[in-house]
Amino acid sequence: MSMESVAARGSMSAAEVRKMIRQGRLRVPTTGFAEGFMQANLVILPERHASDFRLFCERNPKSCPLLGVGEPGVPGLPELGSIDIRTDVARYRVYRSGTHVETVENLSDIWRDDLVTFALGCSFSFESAILRAGIDIRHISANRNVPMYATNLPTSPAGPFAGSTVVSMRAFRPADAIQAIILSERYPLAHGAPVHIGDPAEIGIKEINRPDYGDPPVIEPGDILGFWACGVTPQLALQQAKLDLAITHEPGFMLVTDLPADTQSVR
Amino acid sequence: MSMESVAARGSMSAAEVRKMIRQGRLRVPTTGFAEGFMQANLVILPERHASDFRLFCERNPKSCPLLGVGEPGVPGLPELGSIDIRTDVARYRVYRSGTHVETVENLSDIWRDDLVTFALGCSFSFESAILRAGIDIRHISANRNVPMYATNLPTSPAGPFAGSTVVSMRAFRPADAIQAIILSERYPLAHGAPVHIGDPAEIGIKEINRPDYGDPPVIEPGDILGFWACGVTPQLALQQAKLDLAITHEPGFMLVTDLPADTQSVR
Repeated sequence: MSMESVAARGSMSAAEVRKMIRQGRLRVPTTGFAEGFMQANLVILPERHASDFRLFCERNPKSCPLLGVGEPGVPGLPELGSIDIRTDVARYRVYRSGTHVETVENLSDIWRDDLVTFALGCSFSFESAILRAGIDIRHISANRNVPMYATNLPTSPAGPFAGSTVVSMRAFRPADAIQAIILSERYPLAHGAPVHIGDPAEIGIKEINRPDYGDPPVIEPGDILGFWACGVTPQLALQQAKLDLAITHEPGFMLVTDLPADTQSVR
Repeated sequence: MSMESVAARGSMSAAEVRKMIRQGRLRVPTTGFAEGFMQANLVILPERHASDFRLFCERNPKSCPLLGVGEPGVPGLPELGSIDIRTDVARYRVYRSGTHVETVENLSDIWRDDLVTFALGCSFSFESAILRAGIDIRHISANRNVPMYATNLPTSPAGPFAGSTVVSMRAFRPADAIQAIILSERYPLAHGAPVHIGDPAEIGIKEINRPDYGDPPVIEPGDILGFWACGVTPQLALQQAKLDLAITHEPGFMLVTDLPADTQSVR
């Protein structure tokens, strides 16, 4: 895949990307692949925790926008495409009792009849909309991962799932920040509008240059900082719940779905 | 009118408000009257400047959202209601050669066959939407006029009309500022989304506590400052153009139209 141009990556269909992953021929982050298709965060957990986790998502829709939920033991997500969730993501994180014990390239040896799959929206859709509007996203231009921070904003708990909201940060010139707010609000399945703008300290972020996840930020003088609810929030809740088994994607290695990237609702 | 309750003012129709004004029985600012109807800034000027002024409005739609334009010498604006523009605004400012020479209660003695009327959107519609969302607007709670400032943001000139953009400022808690941006963007005829947020100095405002127009601001610690293009912008352009005659409303004494307050387009 290293020979593929950026344009070729973008013009692939979601099904083509999934096929390459399934065949073991694509082992890089999915950013920039299959432009126009919605990518998803992945959470897989045992059925007995599924209704609590679903409730957690519904109570925290900005962090955990629900795109689709599978049936127990069934590795398909028919509403999101012709998907075998055991093979169609390039890298999976396996958690046991809340600890990340291994990263695997498929779930063939791990899959169980009681596992339920959740696909949650990610920020790519609104970032694409911002880029299409001609607005620079500093971490993308700098070829960095988005900076992410733990905050003092609580989630609404459900069963064993709780914890604080994790946010991603994007810095903009003030006029661009206004547009970024307006554009992101149109993508509720991609975390929607920011949860905070301005002073990081107000949401409990002490050192903006030392993110808890991702890369250090790129901030220019006069920038407005925007903080969006982030897909790491459910991952943190999942770890804290210490389930016997839980599976997520490795950050950046998303599930590429057949949903159009500008889908605003799946209900 | 002093005996009328706030609720009674709000529940009046636009036509009822205009009738009371026409009969000389309502001589207070129109804020809070005829809730649900769009109020307008007024500009009246000689026909030979009308096409330049129209172009100025079209080139600066955030400052000068055009609701309606009259025919030369005709005091009606049929698209906006059964209006006689000579009598249906409570107070008019009369400018000669760019100087405010008098404030009058009707235009009977001043009206000419070459005068053209422009009705421009004002901020009441988006402020109503913000209040309906349960968000405090500090200057309204403090019973003050909105603070307004000259900026270094240029307008796009047309003929004799030019000058810098005047903005109104509203301060919010960060989460409320995000909502205020999203809500105001839905009202392009009420100045739309802000033109700036954050540091006032970036748009040339040196002393935030000394507005150029209106009352001093109410700002709480941690507030995000939002700056919206303001209807004083065309008034300033009008003064600088030094026309032989120009007429506007006295600030706060608006034209109350029959348009629903949530009208998003008049084209």
